[in-house]
Amino acid sequence: MNAPVQIQRDDALSPVQHLWTLCRDDMAAVDALIVERMHSPIGMIPDLAQHLVGAGGKRLRPLLTVATARLCDYSGDAHHKLAAAVEFIHSATLLHDDVVDESDLRRGRKPANLIWGNSASILVGDFLFARAFNLMVEAGSMEALGILSNASSVIAEGEVHQLAALRNIDMTEDDYMTVIEAKTAALFAAATEVAPVITGLDAAKRTALRDYGMKLGLAFQLVDDALDYGGQQSALGKSVGDDFREGKMTLPVIRALAKADASETEFWRKVIVAREQDDLDLQRAVSILRRTGALDETLQMARRFSVEAIETLDPFERSPLRDCLQDLAAYVVSRAS
Amino acid sequence: MNAPVQIQRDDALSPVQHLWTLCRDDMAAVDALIVERMHSPIGMIPDLAQHLVGAGGKRLRPLLTVATARLCDYSGDAHHKLAAAVEFIHSATLLHDDVVDESDLRRGRKPANLIWGNSASILVGDFLFARAFNLMVEAGSMEALGILSNASSVIAEGEVHQLAALRNIDMTEDDYMTVIEAKTAALFAAATEVAPVITGLDAAKRTALRDYGMKLGLAFQLVDDALDYGGQQSALGKSVGDDFREGKMTLPVIRALAKADASETEFWRKVIVAREQDDLDLQRAVSILRRTGALDETLQMARRFSVEAIETLDPFERSPLRDCLQDLAAYVVSRAS
Repeated sequence: MNAPVQIQRDDALSPVQHLWTLCRDDMAAVDALIVERMHSPIGMIPDLAQHLVGAGGKRLRPLLTVATARLCDYSGDAHHKLAAAVEFIHSATLLHDDVVDESDLRRGRKPANLIWGNSASILVGDFLFARAFNLMVEAGSMEALGILSNASSVIAEGEVHQLAALRNIDMTEDDYMTVIEAKTAALFAAATEVAPVITGLDAAKRTALRDYGMKLGLAFQLVDDALDYGGQQSALGKSVGDDFREGKMTLPVIRALAKADASETEFWRKVIVAREQDDLDLQRAVSILRRTGALDETLQMARRFSVEAIETLDPFERSPLRDCLQDLAAYVVSRAS
Repeated sequence: MNAPVQIQRDDALSPVQHLWTLCRDDMAAVDALIVERMHSPIGMIPDLAQHLVGAGGKRLRPLLTVATARLCDYSGDAHHKLAAAVEFIHSATLLHDDVVDESDLRRGRKPANLIWGNSASILVGDFLFARAFNLMVEAGSMEALGILSNASSVIAEGEVHQLAALRNIDMTEDDYMTVIEAKTAALFAAATEVAPVITGLDAAKRTALRDYGMKLGLAFQLVDDALDYGGQQSALGKSVGDDFREGKMTLPVIRALAKADASETEFWRKVIVAREQDDLDLQRAVSILRRTGALDETLQMARRFSVEAIETLDPFERSPLRDCLQDLAAYVVSRAS
């Protein structure tokens, strides 16, 4: 059913850059909205927000909203407000995560809380989160509001779940999947579901685009969790080994634990539960994760979700935009190769 | 225009208790919603939320929403969802405030962050805030959503403003009024404005009810700030002297500074800016605030707002409910006498 289409593409561009090119005007409007709405007479707010938002994030989530809106042939301008809202929800989450995770690197920079303090990051996060809802109200779609407010409570629930499971060596793979679906994939899914909703497309298209976002988000997080044990710091924009140092139970560790002998189980118990770690422990962890195939299995699962994400877009007519969204799903797992 | 009406009231009840009695069924529905919506399979969420929400708060803000809805003869049930949303916004703010303020007492109890940790309070706060928006979406009024989402960003802005002004001895009275209008009165105003909006009343009634909430909130916060230097801990539900210890610039201090001689200015600089405080300093502060009339002036201003709040309800037909809302405005300032 998909006849080959001649597509002009600059193959030197990543699919993210390519999507930016295809949605240039939309993203300029979204960027302008983001800058405008993070303004406040209280200087600490734009200063801190600008530090995070201006730190060269890819704006991947708002890009998904405008790209899927284009794919749906949406003709209004509510997608700009919803896209900016999606980025604000994400930014608020990052500001609070920095306080919770005690990380020392975010998007290659010092996190805001290490400059302005934890209190400022908490309260400016709250401000951005509230501003996200201001934007959604202006967008005027109660259905889109329902999708994004629901995603917001699912995200928060996932973050609490992850916190409660910290250093819990008995965390199951099911728990892990529940956590990453909630804390990461739910916002991707909401970002892509609002487009068919405001366009008024049928339930099948809506489900397809929601599923695309969900699978893409799952693949994205699985790769992120693998990269934490195997990536280069520069490519990751955060410190390698952060999850390890926090005692976060991610799939690589869960899979390695399932195959661990007594001595390895003892090792994981020491570093994850007791958080007794020296400089060599991260190296030993990486070596176990590689040898047992736990990292490969994690990436394998990411690739499966990537393929499923690509397939969900098959019902849409072929176009440069659809191809690019499918390329993006392949690209997020190629980061790790 | 206000003919005397024979009203059956039990004068032993406070106006808050009286309003509860008048809105018994509504508040039972709101309470049920609050309990239902703070549920989550992640046990830490209901545990922590219950610690705060079950700590015997007066539910003053949701009570204002249902009482004003009754005053407007509202006949639907959206007011229950909006009232629960108002309480969730307030609860989320309290959870984050506890982390920011480092207080050791909240509603007479140990704050949640000292039991479950700062991270849990931040993330459960986010969850309650998101759930507030879920409830508003269900309530189905985009206009009410706009009012409450706007109040939410104003509150966060006010909290950041207060944080930025901490230990700043040059904070003006205008700044102070801006802060308390944002961090406290805005939610009272939103809580009372949504009722005429969902009822579809005219702009005059809407403005009157919004103003009532705003003035009531200002009076409430002014009294709170005076009580921090003069209240009994049991009546306040928080520690006396919290603002002082944090170096928070409130009206009593601003007024006292305006009249301070060189030695007193030096004292305030030491305790507020440098935060060098010993056990006797709080006593000395209270003594200065009393002698200079700064506490009295603060309460005087609270009484003016209370009177204005009462007057804003005059256009409404006299009823037990209207009387009770007016009594409430008188009552919040009587706490300090």
